[in-house]
Amino acid sequence: MKTNLDVLIANNQLKGEAFLDEIDGKNPLFIATIATTETGKIPGLSAAGANPDFTDFTPPADAELLLLGKCKSIQGVPITPDGIPTPALITLSALRLADIPVVIANAGVKVKPQVPYIELGGNSGRDIRTGDSVDNVEEVIERAKTAGEQLAKTSDYLVIGESIPGGTTTALGLLTALGVNAEGKVSSTLPENPHSLKVDVVKTGLKTAGEKFGSLADNPIKAVSCVGDPMMPALAGLVIGAARQVPVLMAGGTQMTAVLALINALNPEALCNVAIGTTRWVTSDKSSDIKGIVTQFCDVPILAADLNFGTSRFPGLSIYETGLVKEGVGAGGACIAAMAKMGDAVNKDLLLKAIERNYSVLMAMK
Amino acid sequence: MKTNLDVLIANNQLKGEAFLDEIDGKNPLFIATIATTETGKIPGLSAAGANPDFTDFTPPADAELLLLGKCKSIQGVPITPDGIPTPALITLSALRLADIPVVIANAGVKVKPQVPYIELGGNSGRDIRTGDSVDNVEEVIERAKTAGEQLAKTSDYLVIGESIPGGTTTALGLLTALGVNAEGKVSSTLPENPHSLKVDVVKTGLKTAGEKFGSLADNPIKAVSCVGDPMMPALAGLVIGAARQVPVLMAGGTQMTAVLALINALNPEALCNVAIGTTRWVTSDKSSDIKGIVTQFCDVPILAADLNFGTSRFPGLSIYETGLVKEGVGAGGACIAAMAKMGDAVNKDLLLKAIERNYSVLMAMK
Repeated sequence: MKTNLDVLIANNQLKGEAFLDEIDGKNPLFIATIATTETGKIPGLSAAGANPDFTDFTPPADAELLLLGKCKSIQGVPITPDGIPTPALITLSALRLADIPVVIANAGVKVKPQVPYIELGGNSGRDIRTGDSVDNVEEVIERAKTAGEQLAKTSDYLVIGESIPGGTTTALGLLTALGVNAEGKVSSTLPENPHSLKVDVVKTGLKTAGEKFGSLADNPIKAVSCVGDPMMPALAGLVIGAARQVPVLMAGGTQMTAVLALINALNPEALCNVAIGTTRWVTSDKSSDIKGIVTQFCDVPILAADLNFGTSRFPGLSIYETGLVKEGVGAGGACIAAMAKMGDAVNKDLLLKAIERNYSVLMAMK
Repeated sequence: MKTNLDVLIANNQLKGEAFLDEIDGKNPLFIATIATTETGKIPGLSAAGANPDFTDFTPPADAELLLLGKCKSIQGVPITPDGIPTPALITLSALRLADIPVVIANAGVKVKPQVPYIELGGNSGRDIRTGDSVDNVEEVIERAKTAGEQLAKTSDYLVIGESIPGGTTTALGLLTALGVNAEGKVSSTLPENPHSLKVDVVKTGLKTAGEKFGSLADNPIKAVSCVGDPMMPALAGLVIGAARQVPVLMAGGTQMTAVLALINALNPEALCNVAIGTTRWVTSDKSSDIKGIVTQFCDVPILAADLNFGTSRFPGLSIYETGLVKEGVGAGGACIAAMAKMGDAVNKDLLLKAIERNYSVLMAMK
């Protein structure tokens, strides 16, 4: 590696180093893919909002925060029930430190953000327990491919993140339908990972749809339609459309493994030009296993921003070290991209300083 | 100028040369701003559709053509009542020859395109004879500024075109409200420019709104709301957001003079980094006077792609030499950008060959 970045490689060291070499000093475009679902409102599943109904506002508010530095759809910023602010705060800080442009891709939200966004023709998702959770999967993939093709031409590479409450449960749903064993392996924003609740929800959804583990391995479109979420076809399409031309850093935790599995089923060649970019809080998490999911079907490298908030004077940040939140809105990937673009000018200490600065400004707005 | 491009300078030779120097060999992003209005359906005003009601489909179909190389919302491609194909055919050919990326900005259309587009929060426009033609002007300007700021970071410069039927009439409306004398000076897609009809429509709109020539010079937002169209705030916002960082080529004919006047009223410093890019058919048109409008309030250079279809074997193209269509969907600006990017590898003859190739493919699809 040309620079000594604060980035860990949690899977496929050689390809991971090659990926970091390739993006060294380069100018990316960051895309935040937003969606909401009724699955995200099942009590106890998601902490991406102060209460379940509030999850409809979290993705649009995250989008506003990234573009404007403040939210319009809500007062203050999205918080967990414990009052921890959205990881979009990390993303915002990283993107601004490195002057990385950002666009929002609307994969299907109930509440539209009050900022410009790329419309991909999807709808907000239903509860996966209905066995019929996502509309227009094929059409959204096609539109997202078209968008990915065009956006890839504007930049050296793309960093694509997500904001979708309840996304690890739908990730478990899609992975299970595709025959990837992810039980007990998906991550959580919550202090106690509610694995058994997630498994129950997914089992109910598959049963209602008349499907079971692996039964939709050859029908990925149907798998998303039954037990997935709207973020998946949008993000997969963006990656497939872009990866023919430029590298793509898929910025997220275990949710990205479901998107990887979808791409692997639709267009596996795209995976040659892809890495997952997340945080150390995900890759070192004892209650989930991102590598254990990925390595079941591909050798995509997993990069992790080596962030450490343990020294922060703000309890809402130092609490990350206890395993809360961990990742979201492409926080880890945005930090990796900022460090790769700026070299020595951005490292984990400077990132934390910028994050603390924005934290104090934004928390004062409440 | 570093290269001997097939580009004419129709206003401000020195600044025009400097602008061409600045974009020489550079990578732009093309943005097509689409909108529809009820004004465009007034019989006899616009030829941007086979009949007035069809004008609702022209902008989304143009968007689809640019992104996919074919339309989805309609069979074939948009045509004039005489069967002449949309100038988006020229735009498409130029952008593909030079591998220039394109995004669609939805400023307010009745029929949504079946491709990805950036949503800016506007609505389709009402008939300006109501004196109340455009919603959310201020909000759309703000959102478009945000989009322009981000998109400017992705590219060396922006080329921003429009597709809005009836746009020269609403241009006359806004210019008149702002106190710019444009009677008899706006262009037309029709063989006979219906100046007196346009003037009557504008006069009715201003009267209904309780306004007159120049009465809204100090209230440009209200001027757009009363007698403008939804393309104007979107395009002006994109330019203002981008021009602080990169040059902007405003790709269009006399419609762009209304956007220029709006920018001049809102944020005149943005005009330092702007040129109009159009076609020779506009700048040499005897029935309109683009330079005569622009020079009333600014010294922005006017560049014109020196296209000549006189030698084309296709009557739908050679007819451009009689003054039909002339411009639209950023055709002139896209050709200028393609030539500036590719230098000797793209000139007017190669452009015509590419346009003829796409013409024969697309007309065969009908």
